[in-house]
Amino acid sequence: MENLRIPGPTPCPPEVLQAMTKQMINHRGAEFSAMLNSVTAELKTFFQTKNDVLCLTGSGTGGMEAAIVNMLSPGDKVLSVSCGVFGDRFADIARMFGADVTSVKFDQGIVCDPAAVKQALQKDAKIKAVLLTHNETSTGVTNDLGTLAKIVKDAGKLLIVDCVSSLGSIDCPVDKWGLDVAITGSQKGWMAPPGLAMVSVSEAAWKAHAAAKMPKIYWDFTRAKKNLEKGQTPWTPAIPVAYALNVSLKMMQKEGMQNIFARHARLADMTRKGVKTMGLKLVVHDEKYASNTVTAVWPPEGVNPDNLRKTMRDKYQVVLTGGQGVLEGKIFRFGHLGMCDEHDIQGALDALRKSLPEHGYNPK
Amino acid sequence: MENLRIPGPTPCPPEVLQAMTKQMINHRGAEFSAMLNSVTAELKTFFQTKNDVLCLTGSGTGGMEAAIVNMLSPGDKVLSVSCGVFGDRFADIARMFGADVTSVKFDQGIVCDPAAVKQALQKDAKIKAVLLTHNETSTGVTNDLGTLAKIVKDAGKLLIVDCVSSLGSIDCPVDKWGLDVAITGSQKGWMAPPGLAMVSVSEAAWKAHAAAKMPKIYWDFTRAKKNLEKGQTPWTPAIPVAYALNVSLKMMQKEGMQNIFARHARLADMTRKGVKTMGLKLVVHDEKYASNTVTAVWPPEGVNPDNLRKTMRDKYQVVLTGGQGVLEGKIFRFGHLGMCDEHDIQGALDALRKSLPEHGYNPK
Repeated sequence: MENLRIPGPTPCPPEVLQAMTKQMINHRGAEFSAMLNSVTAELKTFFQTKNDVLCLTGSGTGGMEAAIVNMLSPGDKVLSVSCGVFGDRFADIARMFGADVTSVKFDQGIVCDPAAVKQALQKDAKIKAVLLTHNETSTGVTNDLGTLAKIVKDAGKLLIVDCVSSLGSIDCPVDKWGLDVAITGSQKGWMAPPGLAMVSVSEAAWKAHAAAKMPKIYWDFTRAKKNLEKGQTPWTPAIPVAYALNVSLKMMQKEGMQNIFARHARLADMTRKGVKTMGLKLVVHDEKYASNTVTAVWPPEGVNPDNLRKTMRDKYQVVLTGGQGVLEGKIFRFGHLGMCDEHDIQGALDALRKSLPEHGYNPK
Repeated sequence: MENLRIPGPTPCPPEVLQAMTKQMINHRGAEFSAMLNSVTAELKTFFQTKNDVLCLTGSGTGGMEAAIVNMLSPGDKVLSVSCGVFGDRFADIARMFGADVTSVKFDQGIVCDPAAVKQALQKDAKIKAVLLTHNETSTGVTNDLGTLAKIVKDAGKLLIVDCVSSLGSIDCPVDKWGLDVAITGSQKGWMAPPGLAMVSVSEAAWKAHAAAKMPKIYWDFTRAKKNLEKGQTPWTPAIPVAYALNVSLKMMQKEGMQNIFARHARLADMTRKGVKTMGLKLVVHDEKYASNTVTAVWPPEGVNPDNLRKTMRDKYQVVLTGGQGVLEGKIFRFGHLGMCDEHDIQGALDALRKSLPEHGYNPK
């Protein structure tokens, strides 16, 4: 079987796949309500929040668009803090819907600098909201969200965070850090297939929502919340993904949140050590900020990372992913989130070690 | 097992449910591309179109929002023709995103009158696009889309049609009728779970899209088309639903489109005859326009339809659905689309016949 080591969709445990063989049910009936209520409660424990958590049918990007259109009005001043493709995408969405976006950008592999964020906020008192990325999937960088969030909240701004590839895998205490909207997707650390975006909404976020004028119907948080009060979703949800998530969340509860975080830290460390041992370099500059869910790697000089991945896939059934944006064709990335263990990582590293010589590089 | 007789989600064949136990794959890889290309080609045969067909992760309402934001600019004059909740929803979406909407509305159970549409178009030459519903799921009325479409196209207007509960079940020749955008959802006649909206886009629609200024990123047809050229979707798709649809479409091809339409006609006829035999009345006024996918029924005087449904569900495991909008608490509805046969309909009718006396009505 394939060793799918991309940062989402992640492999699902057999029990989770099996859960999807359950027949369809009425999404306005009692059985669905009980399931949605249970999923929502379990999500809250992993979000470490008492805020509302809403399940929307869509991808992580759909969740990001939902966050923007529910929080902002055209013309609102927004600070975007980006260190990669997903940070840039967040800013693009805000801009598309008419926000007045100021961008603070950091080069690929560089972590977002809290001092620069502080400075940008001091420079323009009219900024209403800040868009942050917890874990930048395109470069394997985890921002110091606790510190960044404190700066944003101390400045009294609304804080909207892309936690798509961190929540559930990396410690991300939504309430403690004061994240007003935190977004994730079912196909990341949650060990479920893609199809649902999950977002938490704080009291301050609900206040902002009440004033927000960007157009929305499908993503409307008010409709989602009103329906959730009846154990429903406003529109027909991706039922199989809800079945899957309902099972995977129970598996996650059983493993325990701290154990899950520790496992991700261990596997990430193993991945980094493995590639460095072969003489390869990480994309992240300061390893202190290396992500525990995705590791981005520079290939050896002269090696085409996409050809290298092809060898790994064709010969060893190990599937990595490539670079995005300016890093397309330049790097390769390991996903080590969700269902993943030492055996998976060792297999992926072995495949890399065996494939490199075919591309003219002999690993140390 | 439950006899799920609601107009979506519809029950899935065992092979379709089983298809979802397949492990996740890279949605940027060759295997996914081959599947998406195959699904897209099969959809085109059932849409009876050479237009582009795009698969979007979302519900049918998501597909409707996608159609609006991709075709229109704020301020555009739009004619909405509605005979129920879904027609009204389409107008609401257009209005929310800034279209200047004129509504032609028909009472619950009444079909949209082509003459009224013609008149409305003659009255205002500035109308750019017309929103129609092929099959109004809330009342069980199928509009004469062929005639309506001819009027709209003869007037040179863009034609955007909610075919959510008709396409794949009722004859809906997209190209012959000149539908510029036709929208459906995986959980209707397609025998797959909810999670994907499928939309066709004509040449004229692409021209309108190029000029359309409503904000969009997640639903952007240009991104969807560019990605489809690589056998991909712009955002991580609901992979299990794609697995399911890939299998259900092959089952549909095997049954044959005309056979599927004939089966739906037969089962709808059986449902209508069955309820009328019991002395109950259909919501549709002129049975010529009765839907072949959903039948809406008035309960006998004094019978609460929601309590009646509860008896049918609790005692006989037959799940019907209730009314929506102004018909909430007033009617009940049978879904007979997708995976459905005579046995299912007979079971549902038997349960109705046995349940009515408990609510004080003795069927004829």
